[in-house]
Amino acid sequence: MADDRRKPMRVGVLGTGEVGRRLAAGFRGRGHAVTIGSRDPDKPELRDWLAGEGEGIEAGTFAETAAGGELLVLAVLGDAADDVIAAAGPQNFAGKVVIDAMNPLDFSGGFPPKLSISGEDSLGERVQRALPEAKVVKAFNTIGNPYFVEPSFSEGRPTMLIAGDDPDAKRTVTDLLADFGWPDTVDIGGIEGSRELEAICIAWVKIGGARGKWDHGFKLLTG
Amino acid sequence: MADDRRKPMRVGVLGTGEVGRRLAAGFRGRGHAVTIGSRDPDKPELRDWLAGEGEGIEAGTFAETAAGGELLVLAVLGDAADDVIAAAGPQNFAGKVVIDAMNPLDFSGGFPPKLSISGEDSLGERVQRALPEAKVVKAFNTIGNPYFVEPSFSEGRPTMLIAGDDPDAKRTVTDLLADFGWPDTVDIGGIEGSRELEAICIAWVKIGGARGKWDHGFKLLTG
Repeated sequence: MADDRRKPMRVGVLGTGEVGRRLAAGFRGRGHAVTIGSRDPDKPELRDWLAGEGEGIEAGTFAETAAGGELLVLAVLGDAADDVIAAAGPQNFAGKVVIDAMNPLDFSGGFPPKLSISGEDSLGERVQRALPEAKVVKAFNTIGNPYFVEPSFSEGRPTMLIAGDDPDAKRTVTDLLADFGWPDTVDIGGIEGSRELEAICIAWVKIGGARGKWDHGFKLLTG
Repeated sequence: MADDRRKPMRVGVLGTGEVGRRLAAGFRGRGHAVTIGSRDPDKPELRDWLAGEGEGIEAGTFAETAAGGELLVLAVLGDAADDVIAAAGPQNFAGKVVIDAMNPLDFSGGFPPKLSISGEDSLGERVQRALPEAKVVKAFNTIGNPYFVEPSFSEGRPTMLIAGDDPDAKRTVTDLLADFGWPDTVDIGGIEGSRELEAICIAWVKIGGARGKWDHGFKLLTG
């Protein structure tokens, strides 16, 4: 259905940890041209991945990845966001849909983590402020990365909650999410909704810690 | 099933708004002896309610209600919590399970509300600090009050998320929730989890605003 609805895009995923790899593979699997960005695109573990699970994905520097992508995904650790945006070049995000899949997790006090940005701010808002000409959409941050693509639970599909200031960008992300196997995306409003979505990440992590397993996700029931 | 498992308790519900009334009626309907506490227990609208939907429920001052209850419920507006606790007498909460169903909502900027307490604090934590000898359990704050009792959605029952420092108190609340028609309660940890649960309230409210209706709730999918 994706191919009927949308042309393949050039997608740049910034970050080569599990979150970045899962998302890069997800976009590649849906027919998009994907570059994955790293501080060191030649590092052996990345090359190994590109030769295996990451087949068909290109690697580049953060700047190359950001410059080349029509749609960009921020998928680094929350604490690295500022540095990665600086390395990627803020101008390379201008006018583009930017998916913020990050969480500002502070593990300095052990498990469970706390939010390193909270109160009247959030990482999503900070990213939008750092990239005022980008259309930042918070997504993928309230579920573990094994569920990014075709999530399935015994009682059905979970709900993706998203937030962002640009309605068109949220429609684009909602369509992409449908292709990823998330038929139910709920838009909670402007990018300041990242405050709630990042808190929901903490709740997700605490539930995993309490259960001792990580096979859980939220669904919005209606009607 | 409730009657097999548990003796009726004396329950004191502080607050006569919709949240307090729904909870008071819920406890009454499950065979408990319920007092509902108000600044003015003789006010006509409360008397009207007690003569109708609230039949069988007693009314008292905050202090009478807190002194008489074996289990207490804080169900006033979040901003009123400090005053109501002071009026009720902090000593009247000592040693008791106290359900905090409140949210610190700030509507001063219009809709959607923001949290008036956020960052490295929450109303739940504040209540626990104000009542150090009470066993505070955050519950009922992530769903609209029409769903407090026997919640039902087309795709099933929602999940109640709770937080608190006392494991026994959380077991008591989990059992009570099962009687209320919430078979699935998930404990996210200590009372500092109120940070997440209060943020989830904001998400719930924003989703209602976006959908233009309020028939929604969260379910945790697993496995």
